[in-house]
Amino acid sequence: MNSFQPTAERQSVLENKSSSEVKSKSVSQINGHRARQDFSSVYNRDLLPAESGEEVTKNFLLELLDILFSYICKSFKRSSKVLDFHHAHQLKDGLDGFTLALPDEPENLEQLLVDCRDTLKYGIKTGHPRFFNQLSSGLDIIGLAGEWLTSTANTNMFTYEVAPVFILMEEVLLRNMMSMIGWPEEEGDGLFCPGGSVSNLNSMLLARYHFFPEVKKKGMAALPKLAILTSSHSHYSVQKSAAVLGIGIDNVLLVKCDERGKMIPAELESSIITAKGAGLVPFYVNATAGTTVYGAFDPLNDIADICQRHGLWMHVDASWGGGLLMSKRHSAKLNGIHRASSVTWNPHKMMGVPLQCSAILVRTKGILQECNQLRAAYLFQPDKHYDISYDTGDKTLQCGRHVDVFKFWLMWKAKGSTGFEAQINRCLDNAEYLYDKLQGRADFQLVFKSKPEHSNVCFWYLPDSVRNLQVGPERNNKLHTVAPKIKGKMMKEGLTMIGYQPLGDKVNFFRCVFSNPATQREDVDFLLDEIARLGSDL
Amino acid sequence: MNSFQPTAERQSVLENKSSSEVKSKSVSQINGHRARQDFSSVYNRDLLPAESGEEVTKNFLLELLDILFSYICKSFKRSSKVLDFHHAHQLKDGLDGFTLALPDEPENLEQLLVDCRDTLKYGIKTGHPRFFNQLSSGLDIIGLAGEWLTSTANTNMFTYEVAPVFILMEEVLLRNMMSMIGWPEEEGDGLFCPGGSVSNLNSMLLARYHFFPEVKKKGMAALPKLAILTSSHSHYSVQKSAAVLGIGIDNVLLVKCDERGKMIPAELESSIITAKGAGLVPFYVNATAGTTVYGAFDPLNDIADICQRHGLWMHVDASWGGGLLMSKRHSAKLNGIHRASSVTWNPHKMMGVPLQCSAILVRTKGILQECNQLRAAYLFQPDKHYDISYDTGDKTLQCGRHVDVFKFWLMWKAKGSTGFEAQINRCLDNAEYLYDKLQGRADFQLVFKSKPEHSNVCFWYLPDSVRNLQVGPERNNKLHTVAPKIKGKMMKEGLTMIGYQPLGDKVNFFRCVFSNPATQREDVDFLLDEIARLGSDL
Repeated sequence: MNSFQPTAERQSVLENKSSSEVKSKSVSQINGHRARQDFSSVYNRDLLPAESGEEVTKNFLLELLDILFSYICKSFKRSSKVLDFHHAHQLKDGLDGFTLALPDEPENLEQLLVDCRDTLKYGIKTGHPRFFNQLSSGLDIIGLAGEWLTSTANTNMFTYEVAPVFILMEEVLLRNMMSMIGWPEEEGDGLFCPGGSVSNLNSMLLARYHFFPEVKKKGMAALPKLAILTSSHSHYSVQKSAAVLGIGIDNVLLVKCDERGKMIPAELESSIITAKGAGLVPFYVNATAGTTVYGAFDPLNDIADICQRHGLWMHVDASWGGGLLMSKRHSAKLNGIHRASSVTWNPHKMMGVPLQCSAILVRTKGILQECNQLRAAYLFQPDKHYDISYDTGDKTLQCGRHVDVFKFWLMWKAKGSTGFEAQINRCLDNAEYLYDKLQGRADFQLVFKSKPEHSNVCFWYLPDSVRNLQVGPERNNKLHTVAPKIKGKMMKEGLTMIGYQPLGDKVNFFRCVFSNPATQREDVDFLLDEIARLGSDL
Repeated sequence: MNSFQPTAERQSVLENKSSSEVKSKSVSQINGHRARQDFSSVYNRDLLPAESGEEVTKNFLLELLDILFSYICKSFKRSSKVLDFHHAHQLKDGLDGFTLALPDEPENLEQLLVDCRDTLKYGIKTGHPRFFNQLSSGLDIIGLAGEWLTSTANTNMFTYEVAPVFILMEEVLLRNMMSMIGWPEEEGDGLFCPGGSVSNLNSMLLARYHFFPEVKKKGMAALPKLAILTSSHSHYSVQKSAAVLGIGIDNVLLVKCDERGKMIPAELESSIITAKGAGLVPFYVNATAGTTVYGAFDPLNDIADICQRHGLWMHVDASWGGGLLMSKRHSAKLNGIHRASSVTWNPHKMMGVPLQCSAILVRTKGILQECNQLRAAYLFQPDKHYDISYDTGDKTLQCGRHVDVFKFWLMWKAKGSTGFEAQINRCLDNAEYLYDKLQGRADFQLVFKSKPEHSNVCFWYLPDSVRNLQVGPERNNKLHTVAPKIKGKMMKEGLTMIGYQPLGDKVNFFRCVFSNPATQREDVDFLLDEIARLGSDL
């Protein structure tokens, strides 16, 4: 017997009726047991901590759960849309009573519940099995439960004092990740950061401090002219970090890649030598394990050899590829990662942890603390009654730090390492399936021939009007417009979502990525058919 | 009639029994209507997207809600503890079956629910009316609802494409905040960042780019030796930002404050002149609106005059004080803030928004984009079918960005501007009440005499053993040990929490701050009595 399932009648209200219609329906039944409370004369002030606010709070949270659960179910249903697209001006003008403007006087809780429904209605179902648009996708129920608990605990990672359990969970998670990387038990440290870009920024900051500790006090004025090296396919956060740190993006030397998007080691070494000859001091090499567009893995061992030879810091940006370390079948693609000085790894990408969850891992113990600490007396009192080595807040660029670990910890408990492995293998199987299908279709063309290493598959759709043209600039110009036009139509129809981009001399092509365990082969079939349906007459 | 309230029997199970006892109780009744599902042979794989996983998912989320709601109710109950302190080694050894270690094989959902209970049990109730330890406190039900919805939507702020509603909400919130600051409608831009430190870092980055746009490409090597100015009472993130940007903390000139903790304008001007004389190029002044320890407001108009005279960027760190702009009674303390070039304002502090919620606001339109953009083609395609000015992702240091706006937007709807005003006034009233009480007690001493400007009240507790000593080094040494000893005992007893620190020549003192609307005068009375009870025999 359950008390929560909405009745068919209520379900239809929730899904199909406009805001005002829902508002007028002030009483409804949840499975006949619970009379739905009318919240139209109930306000924020009636909720806890108001005296006798427990009942109202409970009923309000149950209503909210009703809305969220209905959304969750729809997210997984292939018959529901991925999105219901509206232009910004439409949403700003107000649709069916959904207004973004902020009031002077409180609105009632009924209106707030309607706003919650509308917010979800006009948003994007990133957990939908046919959402292929981003490296992060899926909706993990355990991860979600973890986030709900995290926000209920509403605390901060700066000290053991206010986050004892979460601080210890962070330690356990980092230790497990470092062990997957292959660092020995007595080495390594790390932190969860607000996204891979901040993790990468941290790595460059640590490397600079490692070679030039005087920079913390004296600034870049005391240093020679630095250079860093990264591949032309690497993530733009490497350049962003160089801009922030005052190294300058002109001093980020982009190393050539092969056709597959992998850094060419010989090119790296010659770039290093050239840079030195030009009076620059290279100190940091970023290798990518899983590039954003091609999903390529740089040859880590070769790069490590070069870094060793020249005494450089080797960072591995495994934001996207780190998850493959969980899979016996795929982890060899990251061979050599244990030789890195630092690693970025985002469980919110390939491991399906809800956003945000990104770790910076660094091999040298103590350097995070030394590089970043400022010993603010009001947070990090040395005369506390407990072991202050757990006050991790002084290791970060931040002060307050969101708790990003609990959801990941809970998911690991729920799946085990073997569960993550199976989930990742399934995503990569989907990529191979797509790759095989594309090879069998004349109206699609792969951007590069080799089998996917990660779950990225890059391809063009070729409408007849393109296929009938000879290879050359005219064909390229025409082809360049195909993906954006299909994407525009696709978003208006709302049945699936996939990204596109140009890269180097390649005109706009689609990039499909798989990180959602809900996606199955039928969804891959659907994607191709949908692209062909939307694009055939272009 | 309700279906969710736990029975008295179950309540006692949830609150008092150890993990193993709870586990053995596999069936329980929620108010007699819903038979509790036994999850001990149910696993993650049985949840959505598993076929026919809806029922299990619903029941699991209801169980979770049960746990969270029980915690929420306890958070507001004065009879419950703020914390149940354990040392790290105790938690790591495993308490009552609560183990942090991560398994290879999946654990069942019953165990996960127990883990959720235990995580909350050993954590800190930051929403408790007697938690005074941090600038962020309280547990706002609407904010919490907002966070739950945000994590269910699980999307990313980088493009309009994947976060249309949230991108527009961000715009509306920033516009409202800028209007409270007093910037005209046609000026201003901003972003929500992962905490005040990152917001402050952003402001310094923008200022550097404003004066020296070549830094983005060429790095600091192309620039003169920069200096920045901030008060000795300002937040340590100013120094941290200078370290990150390669300016160096030696080039952060700390301006003297008066007894009350406010920057002395004449000292600022003479520091600027001295710096210039020493060949430095000052370009950025950080003024604080609400310092961390004293809650002091720097004289913004005087500082703005000086910045104008010397052509410097004026940043106002109103992380803590920004909330006072919502109050007609208190906003005058920030007079002059409209003259700032940039402002940091953390709604997760004084406005009670759940962590994290911090905004950087900048007066010059377009500079965020120019300074930070790198035009990654795979995210920010120029040939999209919608208005790409809403793709805000290229304005940030980050790539992916957590959705921090929805909870704030929903709270504003629920309270209205007037509700925030009342909430903030109440917190400041509590501070005045504490201030008045302290003046009437011989066993306490204020750190400075003047009335609180923000909700910070700083004081020493004076046990007899200290009061009997003459003012001098011996008394100071003794007094320095009092607060840490009381804090240690206080955490073990767990009935309340307050922070302490030394500052300049002042030995360890307590800092009480009020940002929790649940706190009432009786809690202030309790705090003082508890300190005296724990400290009288020291």
